[in-house]
Amino acid sequence: MRTVTYFFIFLNLSLAVFEEPAVYPLPFLVTSLIEVLCLLVFFGRLTHFAKVTLRDVFWKDTKNICIMVAILLSLTDLAIYGVLRMYNMRSIRWSRIVRPIFLINFAESRQIRRAFRSIRNTLPEITYVFLLFMFSLLMFSLMALKLFGERNLQTAEGLPYFKNYLEIVFDLYVLVTTANSPDVMMPAFDFSSWYALFFIAFVIVNTYIFMSLFLAVVYNNYKKHLKNEIRKLAYMKHRKMIEAFNLLKEEEGAQFVVREACWKQLVKLVAPDISNSHRELLLCISDNEQKGFIDKKSFVQLADLLNIQVITLKIRSHPLGQWMPHVYKSAVSRFLRSMVRHRGFVWTYDVIILINAIFIALDEETPYISYAEWVFLALYIIEILLKVYTYEPRAFFGKNQFWNWFDTLIIFAALTATVLNTTLKSTTKYNSQQILDIVFILRVLRLIRIVDSIQRFRVIMNTLINIVPTMLTFGGLTLVVYCVFAIIGMELFHGKIQFFPASSNVPHALECGNPALKDSLFARGKYCKNNFNNFASSFIVLMELTVVNQWHVFANGFANVTVQPAKLYFIAFHIVMVIIIVNIFVSFILEAFFVEYSLEKSEVETAIEQKIQELGMGVQEDELQHEQLLDNMESVEHDLEGEGGTKPQSKGLVFKIASKPTSFLLFYLGPSVHTCLH
Amino acid sequence: MRTVTYFFIFLNLSLAVFEEPAVYPLPFLVTSLIEVLCLLVFFGRLTHFAKVTLRDVFWKDTKNICIMVAILLSLTDLAIYGVLRMYNMRSIRWSRIVRPIFLINFAESRQIRRAFRSIRNTLPEITYVFLLFMFSLLMFSLMALKLFGERNLQTAEGLPYFKNYLEIVFDLYVLVTTANSPDVMMPAFDFSSWYALFFIAFVIVNTYIFMSLFLAVVYNNYKKHLKNEIRKLAYMKHRKMIEAFNLLKEEEGAQFVVREACWKQLVKLVAPDISNSHRELLLCISDNEQKGFIDKKSFVQLADLLNIQVITLKIRSHPLGQWMPHVYKSAVSRFLRSMVRHRGFVWTYDVIILINAIFIALDEETPYISYAEWVFLALYIIEILLKVYTYEPRAFFGKNQFWNWFDTLIIFAALTATVLNTTLKSTTKYNSQQILDIVFILRVLRLIRIVDSIQRFRVIMNTLINIVPTMLTFGGLTLVVYCVFAIIGMELFHGKIQFFPASSNVPHALECGNPALKDSLFARGKYCKNNFNNFASSFIVLMELTVVNQWHVFANGFANVTVQPAKLYFIAFHIVMVIIIVNIFVSFILEAFFVEYSLEKSEVETAIEQKIQELGMGVQEDELQHEQLLDNMESVEHDLEGEGGTKPQSKGLVFKIASKPTSFLLFYLGPSVHTCLH
Repeated sequence: MRTVTYFFIFLNLSLAVFEEPAVYPLPFLVTSLIEVLCLLVFFGRLTHFAKVTLRDVFWKDTKNICIMVAILLSLTDLAIYGVLRMYNMRSIRWSRIVRPIFLINFAESRQIRRAFRSIRNTLPEITYVFLLFMFSLLMFSLMALKLFGERNLQTAEGLPYFKNYLEIVFDLYVLVTTANSPDVMMPAFDFSSWYALFFIAFVIVNTYIFMSLFLAVVYNNYKKHLKNEIRKLAYMKHRKMIEAFNLLKEEEGAQFVVREACWKQLVKLVAPDISNSHRELLLCISDNEQKGFIDKKSFVQLADLLNIQVITLKIRSHPLGQWMPHVYKSAVSRFLRSMVRHRGFVWTYDVIILINAIFIALDEETPYISYAEWVFLALYIIEILLKVYTYEPRAFFGKNQFWNWFDTLIIFAALTATVLNTTLKSTTKYNSQQILDIVFILRVLRLIRIVDSIQRFRVIMNTLINIVPTMLTFGGLTLVVYCVFAIIGMELFHGKIQFFPASSNVPHALECGNPALKDSLFARGKYCKNNFNNFASSFIVLMELTVVNQWHVFANGFANVTVQPAKLYFIAFHIVMVIIIVNIFVSFILEAFFVEYSLEKSEVETAIEQKIQELGMGVQEDELQHEQLLDNMESVEHDLEGEGGTKPQSKGLVFKIASKPTSFLLFYLGPSVHTCLH
Repeated sequence: MRTVTYFFIFLNLSLAVFEEPAVYPLPFLVTSLIEVLCLLVFFGRLTHFAKVTLRDVFWKDTKNICIMVAILLSLTDLAIYGVLRMYNMRSIRWSRIVRPIFLINFAESRQIRRAFRSIRNTLPEITYVFLLFMFSLLMFSLMALKLFGERNLQTAEGLPYFKNYLEIVFDLYVLVTTANSPDVMMPAFDFSSWYALFFIAFVIVNTYIFMSLFLAVVYNNYKKHLKNEIRKLAYMKHRKMIEAFNLLKEEEGAQFVVREACWKQLVKLVAPDISNSHRELLLCISDNEQKGFIDKKSFVQLADLLNIQVITLKIRSHPLGQWMPHVYKSAVSRFLRSMVRHRGFVWTYDVIILINAIFIALDEETPYISYAEWVFLALYIIEILLKVYTYEPRAFFGKNQFWNWFDTLIIFAALTATVLNTTLKSTTKYNSQQILDIVFILRVLRLIRIVDSIQRFRVIMNTLINIVPTMLTFGGLTLVVYCVFAIIGMELFHGKIQFFPASSNVPHALECGNPALKDSLFARGKYCKNNFNNFASSFIVLMELTVVNQWHVFANGFANVTVQPAKLYFIAFHIVMVIIIVNIFVSFILEAFFVEYSLEKSEVETAIEQKIQELGMGVQEDELQHEQLLDNMESVEHDLEGEGGTKPQSKGLVFKIASKPTSFLLFYLGPSVHTCLH
């Protein structure tokens, strides 16, 4: 269901690509039919919701009402537009702006909604700082008008300098974003060096202090909001667990408890995909003294215990070792495996990668070097095969072995692409540019591996990889803002600026087909391809506006081809995207890194550790590389093998707490645990 | 002594203004004599230090050794330069770079040294992130070389695009700072829209993620460092207080205590400038039960008690009320005073300020408007006079009444300047431009007052004003970095680029006097006045480089007139100034605002409050405006007067805890306190 809803949401959003002004035009009938289909699906989903939830709850939820209104608006607009179109009258498809509402308001996208709630909470405080900032801007503009207005100065383009109050406000707003930094100062500075002080004061007050203040307000709210959410969640969880306990409780002596069998059934029900041994471990921790029942306190902890991602790594012997034990355990094979496990193996491959980097930088055309590429590919494939031979394949391609997956995918994609390219070249004598580009990118991406072999870099990289999923929330947030602004932008500026290749003979090709841009910075910077003529271009323009630099050139360019107030569109985008959303993004990265830097363990994690230690199990806490980790596991296995028949082959189990990728906790469940586990 | 040292440090630093290349040239003999004088003063200060500190301590302190080495180096360099100069040989005054060492290393500038220590501690972590960032940059550059290198594309200036690996690295480094944002992408984007994805990926990874990472690392270290420093200071203070207690203690019953007389003497000695009543209040808090002695726990608290800035506001009757009681207490006067205290008075003046703002924006030349200026000035002066008439002048111009001081200074400066300007105009028929500019600025600054009358803005403004002193530390830090880079910059680029006014006939005037800049963006942007020809210009260039925008134009311009590796100077400045120091500045503002936002009171502050409440004193906690505060005080005074002779005129004392300007704590010391105070 989830996937289907997401599919239709993205289908609905991507309609903008096919509708007028289109990247790939489709007839109006097709797009409108698809839209109606999407709306029907959304309506179906909503009625389904209404059936499974209580009537009161359903009608109180603003998001359901939002969706209904959005569906109605879209249908009305579609009908009006269709009718007007039949009579050949053009109108605006204004309902396209409401489409992102479906992305925000379906229950599945809780993260995005939370981010929007966080923004809404930040707004009042932001507004106060913003008003103060605007006041400061207006005051500085007034000063600038008085100081420079009557000097008859000229800008580098020969235009009057600081003559009109509103233009000064715009210019100084741009200076806050630093986009016109020395240019706006130069005429005054050329006139007298002392005027530089005015601009220095302006930049310190507005760019450095106020912009930091915005970050401070957003970050402060982000932290507060996060804390509240976590507290609320923890409270809800606690309450629900107590409710569950009250349902399941039986009397045992003086206290109420939950029996072991009942507990096991419950865990099997709520977490069907955890392994038996993992469940036994949890039971072992919850039922501390092996009394056969679980008391209230331990029971309530269950939710937290289930949240901690404990990876059950079964120490299994290598499948080859089982299939052909003689070959796999022969001296040559043992030597090979110990060689792969050696530190030197990693270093050798680091050197190979460095040499590879030099070869990539060299010219491609020399046949010698293109042969070298095959050698490198072969070397990398041999490395992967050797590793799979040495380590257990299922462990090597485990869930959390990100880097192993990355390596293998990159190498095999490169292999496929290179083979494809060579066959194409030899059969049709024609290099496919797309495939070649992909080959180049894959080749360079291979080099990332060198970072992976240095511990400090690995820690930073792991943090970055860990925050990727949450970053996708910001992807969603950005998508919503971009969609809205892109649709508005297309209505305002569609077709006003056009791009012609350099060889074109069209009149005003250099002025983007619009004589109003003659001599403008926009045309001079050859920015013609940055336009709102279709959805994809609009997104790229908005991306460039997010990066901020030269945004005033865009604003002036688009204002020249339409009307001056069009600048407001660009200012609004700057406020929404840069002052609010980018700052939230920065807050998020700051917070994510602070959490990673603070090495505190959560209470429950410590409880588990303690328990395991109390039970007399060996705990290994080390910042090991994955290979070394696997190494250790193997050596433990060997020890067990070495001690032979004295102990029953306990089918070594290793648990790993995976929530802190920077420091691995390795629990080896020795005989004492097995007693507990039966 | 402190002032003298600072004077000589700044004299020494400002020598750069007068030495070759000079803003105001002075003969070499004069500057060198001044430098020798400065060095002698520093040496004298150092020997003085050596006398008052222990030999071991003195020689262990790296800062003393630093200063000695710096003095020796400066003298050697000066001698060599002088001798070479006599034989007309030019050499480099390289020792000028060590001058900022004096600013850092004299004991007075503890704050700056602390900031430098914080930077030193951050360096290892920054280095790891920086290396990772460089790796990412190099990888993306390699990709760019492979993707675009052989397409024969051209930039907007017609230069080859992405041909040379080192140039690509530089261009992409500039893109990280967003300074060449759409320009660097446009040729590839024009060729194929898909290539935009490469730049989007680059910007997300490097500009958004890595730059936030730098901020995270710097901020994290800043917080950690701050916590450590505070912890260390608290520990030191505690130890010293215990030492003091052991020296002063006397036996009293079962415990050691400090007698009241002894305590009073001590407080008088260590804090000679606090008022008697303040001291009595502290005693009253320390000696809780009025036993005549202070136990160890309370004694140790003394340092914290002294740190809390308690303002003793004596409720005094207005001097006019004492001199001419009949007039001051007449009905008219009472009405006047109650009018001034009324909310409407503030609103009336807010409206006047708004009207004033409109008049300022209007044209100056109309005689009608220049008369209006006199009216406004008069209105403002009447306001101040009325306020001084209503409130007690000493309270109105109290230490913490920042806004009253601000208003009065602005108005009287404006009055003086306007009068001066008018007399000059009427006598010599000549408007002095400088004075007129100052008048304009003062006039606009007056408008700030409107912010002050809105509570929410006042809170933000007060926070900003509170952090100004610490911001000066960053001023010092920036000064040191700027000095070093300005001196190096002058050696590298002095005289290479020159500024000629637009009317000049000098050859290559448009190319800044250097044909190498023909057709460069530097000349086209008319940036000629941004050069390293003297100390002041260098500072302005460095300021523009700190703002980052267009810094690549500067780097390319200066590299064109010297050698290509000159770009390294600009990259180094960017790393030091923007990646490290600006991030520390942002961290500092973030932290300062978080402290202001978190309304927690320190433990000792709460202790004082509690004590006072226990003693049965009235506590008023309100977010009042200063005027209202004064208002309240007066009304209390009136009450006392009203109740006539029943209570002895207790010369009302009001204490205010000033460390939290956002929420004032007002303690009115009623009769019960007076018992305690005597």
